[in-house]
Amino acid sequence: MSARPRAVVLLSGGLDSATAAAIARSEGFDLYALTIEYGQRHSVEIECARAVARALGAVRHVELRVDLAVFGGSALTDCIDVPKDRDLGSAEIPATYVPARNTVFLSLAMAWAEAARAQDIYIGVNALDYSGYPDCRPEFIEAFERLAALATKAGVEGARLRIHAPLIRMTKAEIIRRGLELKVDYGLTRSCYDPDRAGRPCGHCDSCLLRAKGFAEAGVKDPAF
Amino acid sequence: MSARPRAVVLLSGGLDSATAAAIARSEGFDLYALTIEYGQRHSVEIECARAVARALGAVRHVELRVDLAVFGGSALTDCIDVPKDRDLGSAEIPATYVPARNTVFLSLAMAWAEAARAQDIYIGVNALDYSGYPDCRPEFIEAFERLAALATKAGVEGARLRIHAPLIRMTKAEIIRRGLELKVDYGLTRSCYDPDRAGRPCGHCDSCLLRAKGFAEAGVKDPAF
Repeated sequence: MSARPRAVVLLSGGLDSATAAAIARSEGFDLYALTIEYGQRHSVEIECARAVARALGAVRHVELRVDLAVFGGSALTDCIDVPKDRDLGSAEIPATYVPARNTVFLSLAMAWAEAARAQDIYIGVNALDYSGYPDCRPEFIEAFERLAALATKAGVEGARLRIHAPLIRMTKAEIIRRGLELKVDYGLTRSCYDPDRAGRPCGHCDSCLLRAKGFAEAGVKDPAF
Repeated sequence: MSARPRAVVLLSGGLDSATAAAIARSEGFDLYALTIEYGQRHSVEIECARAVARALGAVRHVELRVDLAVFGGSALTDCIDVPKDRDLGSAEIPATYVPARNTVFLSLAMAWAEAARAQDIYIGVNALDYSGYPDCRPEFIEAFERLAALATKAGVEGARLRIHAPLIRMTKAEIIRRGLELKVDYGLTRSCYDPDRAGRPCGHCDSCLLRAKGFAEAGVKDPAF
């Protein structure tokens, strides 16, 4: 058995979570990678998550289906158009918001962490170059950590679950630079909310715009293109 | 469309959640019943949840599969024996504990509540006649409510999600008496952690012992037998 501590890492197949996973590895953790299939419209990101987990040497990779689409309420799971060429400075929360997504994701990560005796969870949320989702903010992450201390047997027995959100105060360019230092292969990642049938990014959704801005500001060509 | 407010009700097929749902109905809510199939060993409780939802006139009933068994760590989802004839006064958290279960359940209920514009969730947890699970205690419920205010678009926009745990300080006998006042048909419910193949309760797990104690103290015959 490995003597390295274990971390559950939420891995979506996108740029941010790949970087968060690489940071977890660089901080000495064995990676327990968790990908949630939540009824998003396309499966290209699941394939990317697999490739990233493999590239980072994850000890285990679980793909778990949780069909949030049954509840409706999001352009990512419903028949609602994904907004294009939006003003990224807008304070409005866009239609791509998935109700309670990160709470669901973190609670599932917590379930695995407790079962696997891990005390660390990594999530690639970002509150700077982002779409204004409430569950990407530092105060949300802190509230979840407080909940975790009360929610589990491990917590009651004194183990303190730490939720690491290492990207939360970084710009997209800073994330990309950090990932490149850690040899993340961004060619394996995809970020588009609305790819075509062949998996090609639309270039106009928030996620494409933020990714393009990040690579431009980092002065690097996006290897996924 | 109905003018009554909506409540998402977590419905397991057991005695407690049926009573919590009946209380929600009595308090004027349209019921959005949510049953999570989490890889528990038997499906009789899913059938009971269906029957209870129908009997209570739920507006919608969603059965959602979330396979917590992939993570392991519980007698309810793993090949671990369910403890029998345990001392219910013991402070130990038993092997039937499912890591982070109620956090997962409440986060899914919150996702539906937000999508359906409901501001109320009912959960049948109980911290008196119970197995000592940490995520059945009042402080856990309160921490989840605080998280909810930060976690969702609805919360950020000022809607306050309320988590109702109407049974939390009741004895099992009090729960049964309240349910009978509300005409709950307990013959439709099952509580056993370890039924046989025909769905008959074992009579010796915590859940069977607590149910028997409750009916005995309420002075009523259990209609499920």
